[in-house]
Amino acid sequence: MAQEDLKILQEEPRKSVSLEPLMSLVKNDLAQVNDLILERLQSPVALIPEIAGYLIKSGGKRLRPVLTLACAQLFKYQGKKAISLAACVEFIHTATLLHDDVVDDSALRRGQASANQLWGNQASVLVGDFLFSRAFELMVEQESLPALKVLSKVSATIAQGEVLQLLHINDLEMTTEKYLEIIHAKTATLFAAAARIGAIIAEGSVEDEKNLKEFGHNLGMAFQLVDDMLDYTADEKTLGKAVGDDFGEGKITLPVIYSYQASDRAEKEFWQRVMVNLTQEEGDFEEAYALLQKHQAIEKTISLASQYIQKAKKALSSFASSPIREALLETCAFVMQRKN
Amino acid sequence: MAQEDLKILQEEPRKSVSLEPLMSLVKNDLAQVNDLILERLQSPVALIPEIAGYLIKSGGKRLRPVLTLACAQLFKYQGKKAISLAACVEFIHTATLLHDDVVDDSALRRGQASANQLWGNQASVLVGDFLFSRAFELMVEQESLPALKVLSKVSATIAQGEVLQLLHINDLEMTTEKYLEIIHAKTATLFAAAARIGAIIAEGSVEDEKNLKEFGHNLGMAFQLVDDMLDYTADEKTLGKAVGDDFGEGKITLPVIYSYQASDRAEKEFWQRVMVNLTQEEGDFEEAYALLQKHQAIEKTISLASQYIQKAKKALSSFASSPIREALLETCAFVMQRKN
Repeated sequence: MAQEDLKILQEEPRKSVSLEPLMSLVKNDLAQVNDLILERLQSPVALIPEIAGYLIKSGGKRLRPVLTLACAQLFKYQGKKAISLAACVEFIHTATLLHDDVVDDSALRRGQASANQLWGNQASVLVGDFLFSRAFELMVEQESLPALKVLSKVSATIAQGEVLQLLHINDLEMTTEKYLEIIHAKTATLFAAAARIGAIIAEGSVEDEKNLKEFGHNLGMAFQLVDDMLDYTADEKTLGKAVGDDFGEGKITLPVIYSYQASDRAEKEFWQRVMVNLTQEEGDFEEAYALLQKHQAIEKTISLASQYIQKAKKALSSFASSPIREALLETCAFVMQRKN
Repeated sequence: MAQEDLKILQEEPRKSVSLEPLMSLVKNDLAQVNDLILERLQSPVALIPEIAGYLIKSGGKRLRPVLTLACAQLFKYQGKKAISLAACVEFIHTATLLHDDVVDDSALRRGQASANQLWGNQASVLVGDFLFSRAFELMVEQESLPALKVLSKVSATIAQGEVLQLLHINDLEMTTEKYLEIIHAKTATLFAAAARIGAIIAEGSVEDEKNLKEFGHNLGMAFQLVDDMLDYTADEKTLGKAVGDDFGEGKITLPVIYSYQASDRAEKEFWQRVMVNLTQEEGDFEEAYALLQKHQAIEKTISLASQYIQKAKKALSSFASSPIREALLETCAFVMQRKN
């Protein structure tokens, strides 16, 4: 491990951190977001609220809408736009999850059967479209063109990221840079937008917007890298999805890229067989895990995630100290240490 | 056939009508729409313009964006918003086609292999999402909140209509009303919005907006009913998709509903077998066609389409006579008489 990485890890001693402080500060706003979401899920076609509600009620951390609410609070924003736009962010996120599960053919999502598993791919595609449209309807009602501009661009970027990921799904030769480009597009841009919108609706300065975008981007990058790691290391029950999902689908993530780059010929053949030919046998997941350990792929992934988290924290430094800022800083630490 | 239907058919003597007058009046604008579409298809992810471009270049009549251009011309509108919003309408339409073909598992679209056939369902879903997002990006740039309001609502309605259709895909007991509700949502609302946007950008009166919405809605209803009929009657090469596609998928359309409602027990059993159990045999399509003929299902469908066309024409009557209005009236006649 490089000196610099060690230094970063030392700066981040393991202490018990949680989302609790953040969640308690946005609690009232979030309750309103949840109400609005349920209200706007309604449709004369009953299957739509049934499917969308299943996914939305199944929980998840609501991290993205919470970012919007929290970042608006940095400016002591009191209006209603934060509620509506946070709901839009969650709708866009949920729509991409629905389509993502169709594309990946995933069987589990947040520990429950995925929507495509229960209702089929066709309904998942169409309900995703519905949620996406509802998000735009709700945004338009807010009459905030800057927020609309940010979120419509993000939606296009997410779709591009997903296509790029699809193109590289079995590509072991993918570079680290290409991989980071993909997760920037499919994950970090929505985090960046969610945070930035807090500044937009509160009419913060251009500098504030830039800092919150930077904060959200870096938090999102770290979040995804930790996700990639947890797919190999977490306990299935805690994670809420099948451990080894990425592995089973031959989805190349950063731990695999790091390990492959350092592999000898026999190891490369192993990765080719399991990730490209997808002829996986009993014990292959354990073998893959051993190779990740051998080449410090997990540590290197954590180290990179940690660098993003440092940048995320730094982007918050221009804001005056306040309970909400401290809670966002703790959220950074939580993203690094989370178990699911 | 009822007296009234006969009267309507008599009012509509077969003469040679075409889209030519309409197309020549919007020709220059449409060229700009096509350029803008190609420009906005661009993405660093090359597969996206490849797939979207394949579908968009494969033609189709561009009827929806043409409606926007033509309706703006009713007001002698000279600005650039018509070009951009017409492109948005086409993007939304293309996105729904991509998802529709995934949902229906269609093999042909406009006489060519469908995108999902060539690139797979996954890419079709994601490229559809991309086009949808691009449409909203482009709309936001126009800063026309009323147009955004109309088109975001339409997108949600289309998705609802598609889900409703999916729910009734093998439902022979579906009422005529339910069927008309479905095609209103999945087809006619986009026609209505495309026409209405012409009035919105040209800052026409509330009455103008209402009339053009009415015009588009009725034209769209007729368009879809004629489509349903052509699926049973057209020549495959002329139609540009597989004749009997709806039949093969067990998709219940109005001709089948009419025929089923008038069927005796043995005929109902036939429809149950071919449309619900989907155990289709050689000669079944011909048998289905014979049953449609026996119960005047095709004539009744044409008659209903013709009633919608009369309403579409009536909605144009408040506008002063002009070449563009006459071309739109001829388009109404064309929709009734088209062969593909």
